[in-house]
Amino acid sequence: MSTTVTFPEEYKGDVRLIVAASGILSARELEITGETYDATSLAAEIAKGTYSAVETVTAFCKRAAICQQLCNALTEICFAEAIEKAKKLDDHFNTTGRTVGPLHGLPMTFKECFHVKGYDASNGYISRCFEPSTTTTPVIQVVEKAGAVVIAKTNVPQTMLVAECENNVFGRTKNPVVSHLSCGGSSGGEGALSAFRGNALGIGTDVGGSIRLPAAFNGVYGYKPSIGILPFIGYAASGWTGVNTGIPAVLGPLAHSIRDMKLLTETVRATQPWLFDPAVIPGAMEQQPPAAKEKPIVGILTQSGVTPHPPVLRAIASAKSKLEAAGFETRDFTPHAPSFSAIREISAQLFTVDGASYPRRELAKAGEPVVSSVVKFGFWDMPRKTHEEMWAWNTRKGEMQKRMLDAWQVLGIDVLVCPAAPHAAISPEETTKELYTVVWNAVDYPAIIMPFTKVDPAIDLKNDAFEPKDELDKKIQALYDPELMAGAPVSLQLVAPRLQDAALLRYAEDLDKVLNGGD
Amino acid sequence: MSTTVTFPEEYKGDVRLIVAASGILSARELEITGETYDATSLAAEIAKGTYSAVETVTAFCKRAAICQQLCNALTEICFAEAIEKAKKLDDHFNTTGRTVGPLHGLPMTFKECFHVKGYDASNGYISRCFEPSTTTTPVIQVVEKAGAVVIAKTNVPQTMLVAECENNVFGRTKNPVVSHLSCGGSSGGEGALSAFRGNALGIGTDVGGSIRLPAAFNGVYGYKPSIGILPFIGYAASGWTGVNTGIPAVLGPLAHSIRDMKLLTETVRATQPWLFDPAVIPGAMEQQPPAAKEKPIVGILTQSGVTPHPPVLRAIASAKSKLEAAGFETRDFTPHAPSFSAIREISAQLFTVDGASYPRRELAKAGEPVVSSVVKFGFWDMPRKTHEEMWAWNTRKGEMQKRMLDAWQVLGIDVLVCPAAPHAAISPEETTKELYTVVWNAVDYPAIIMPFTKVDPAIDLKNDAFEPKDELDKKIQALYDPELMAGAPVSLQLVAPRLQDAALLRYAEDLDKVLNGGD
Repeated sequence: MSTTVTFPEEYKGDVRLIVAASGILSARELEITGETYDATSLAAEIAKGTYSAVETVTAFCKRAAICQQLCNALTEICFAEAIEKAKKLDDHFNTTGRTVGPLHGLPMTFKECFHVKGYDASNGYISRCFEPSTTTTPVIQVVEKAGAVVIAKTNVPQTMLVAECENNVFGRTKNPVVSHLSCGGSSGGEGALSAFRGNALGIGTDVGGSIRLPAAFNGVYGYKPSIGILPFIGYAASGWTGVNTGIPAVLGPLAHSIRDMKLLTETVRATQPWLFDPAVIPGAMEQQPPAAKEKPIVGILTQSGVTPHPPVLRAIASAKSKLEAAGFETRDFTPHAPSFSAIREISAQLFTVDGASYPRRELAKAGEPVVSSVVKFGFWDMPRKTHEEMWAWNTRKGEMQKRMLDAWQVLGIDVLVCPAAPHAAISPEETTKELYTVVWNAVDYPAIIMPFTKVDPAIDLKNDAFEPKDELDKKIQALYDPELMAGAPVSLQLVAPRLQDAALLRYAEDLDKVLNGGD
Repeated sequence: MSTTVTFPEEYKGDVRLIVAASGILSARELEITGETYDATSLAAEIAKGTYSAVETVTAFCKRAAICQQLCNALTEICFAEAIEKAKKLDDHFNTTGRTVGPLHGLPMTFKECFHVKGYDASNGYISRCFEPSTTTTPVIQVVEKAGAVVIAKTNVPQTMLVAECENNVFGRTKNPVVSHLSCGGSSGGEGALSAFRGNALGIGTDVGGSIRLPAAFNGVYGYKPSIGILPFIGYAASGWTGVNTGIPAVLGPLAHSIRDMKLLTETVRATQPWLFDPAVIPGAMEQQPPAAKEKPIVGILTQSGVTPHPPVLRAIASAKSKLEAAGFETRDFTPHAPSFSAIREISAQLFTVDGASYPRRELAKAGEPVVSSVVKFGFWDMPRKTHEEMWAWNTRKGEMQKRMLDAWQVLGIDVLVCPAAPHAAISPEETTKELYTVVWNAVDYPAIIMPFTKVDPAIDLKNDAFEPKDELDKKIQALYDPELMAGAPVSLQLVAPRLQDAALLRYAEDLDKVLNGGD
């Protein structure tokens, strides 16, 4: 039996189909890593003794290895160490009859920007290679204590500030669902690996959509918490700290179900992370008024600024109908929402206050070139701002936060359904920065990506009567190509007000049942 | 009867004694404004019908007017309008038998930097005079709705970034307790007026000690909440917004008791201010683990970096003994605390990232000179920083936040007693920036000032054997002059971890009973 999978260059489809065909995983390993389980139910089986930690970790390592060959999603690989750790978990379980914690035996991956002692955290910069981390990021220590096993770290774009996934150290990651399309970014490796089911649970980071776009483009769940929910201390930065630019990054899960994201979040919060990370807010999820409503009022935002492509418009309309049919009251948020275009511009200016001085410095150290996907995204050449200009942009951001808060109050909605981007997964280097994600970083509202449908060329026809509002609208609409994008996941973004994370996770479970028929 | 009080230039003592002697207030007005009541008990009397809102407001307006003549504490004066509003409150009360809210009839004042529609918010800048505000700051709207009556705004220093209280528009405010000493700042007008009992309750702001130093220097209570507790939106800025410098300002009460600060805070929080101010944290006080302990473990910090003057050292030692005698466990925090000197330096650098470009611009508009107290304080000539330098300082701040959190965990303390400053009220322009307040802004811990004792030349002798640690320590110790400072209030600062505001207010009430014999 060969252990190498050759990826046919002409292959245009769902590369995940190769897993079963390859013969590398046993039937039992296919079962462990397959659709039967999410992390929650898999952990329950491990806790019952159905599967050992070693066989679970081994199965996912094999699948992750195949993903690596087909999609190039991994950076640092810890398979051997992971299996050793799994043995210890099994020893504990066999001796005591108990798990070490709620994540016992679950194989996890982390975005490249986290530290795992003994492995690089280069973030794809040549200058940082072969400098192993001397510490492990606290959130990883927390999940390890709860029984999770780190099997690998995953790929990121150069600069970590674009929604692609390419750098000079690790190359480009591919989308496993439609392999010629972008996997998104910056947590692109996580998104691809999760869709490939190469992990049970993964962690990415998000300052403008970096968890949510890979989740959306690869068709998995993703959750960007409010600032202060999950502990972010001790990661490997790839830019100046967000507190200064006014839009801090957060970490959060990419997963196979809403309840898996809840499991991860509640497991971490149960350790009282405010006792080791000064930025974490005590009590923010545990006790929070107002409590989640039995039946939330659902806002629907179809577009703001940039017109979404036909499959995205269909997804929003279909979600609205299904929710109404299930007895949810919906209210149209589009006319009330503050201008997303304005918030995108403010955010872009704030992300580039330094004129990209940090990544330029990192690249200069090794004399490496900037990659084309970073230049094309549009942040790279934005000018450096003075303090006074930065403060003016931050003042505008504050005004937008107020307008957003007021709009939610006026409309009286509890949760919002909106696009993640104006398009589904698109050709690499074509991902626009005119996204529907960055707005929620700018106002610090928690947001969840929920897979919902796929691009279907038979029904998602090009709109030949499209009347663009401006050049940008025209340009982005012109990117729609139903044949090219056929089969690409189309996801919904669910949003709740700042720090209403507990309510959002509850609402998302309810909406998922209605929209995806889960139970 | 004369209505003008002449302030004798040679007078060196407690100018509040002049109030009763002046004959301007009736016996009943002296009772209303006197030591008999704090805001909580006064509101209870008004609610019982003992005093009308009009006579309460009139009494405080008279007293505030005397304070203005003796101490120059006020900026904008709204007495006539206040009495009109009080009439409406009385009408409501007489008609319905009910108060409009928990602050019914309480005369309040606000620091100059808040907007009251129809009155200037110049912050002492000549260029901003005669431009009345067109809106009222939301927190004022909230307290007015709860029945409070705004009678005046109060003085601030030019730039609002020094612990003095002098500007070219309104002049300098004096300390009513020992009138030749500084009233502190930047909420200096509030501190002086509160000590004079010219209001029932006041609101200041604090980015480095601006509520706490005036409270300490004038011998009243003051509370700097954590960021996100009280709504700060819609005030009149006097510098670039704090989010960019990494140390945002907050507002909070100066008051005559801990329970008054609790009354104000709970009244505002009850309106769910997160529904109108995006920066307010929902649930942060209402439901917060861990709940306050029955008997907190009390940390004692005597000094860090700068050695406090003898009366301050006596106050800390005496508080420790009294708390131990009352059965509280105390633990010495000084050897565990991260260096306050380092945090002071980081904060000073962050406050001046713009090289004071904002106040320089404001002064230039009217061609007015910077006042000497601003120059002497030491921030004025600090150099402008690059983005990269600012980020480096913010990174150091983050490290200090982590060290502070760890130190509290290691020592296992719930609340900390420490100095407010190395000295009590001092000669104007001598207040040092080597304070014990700014550290709690840098790490965002809530802090309360509690009056405790007074400088007593008979026991607080100069320490002739003092061995300075460095030039700064020598310089500051040399400022101690027992005869000059005789009678100056010496206060304690009580601190709890970030967002443990509810617990801090509870602990402060308990400690106040032990230390000040309150009930």
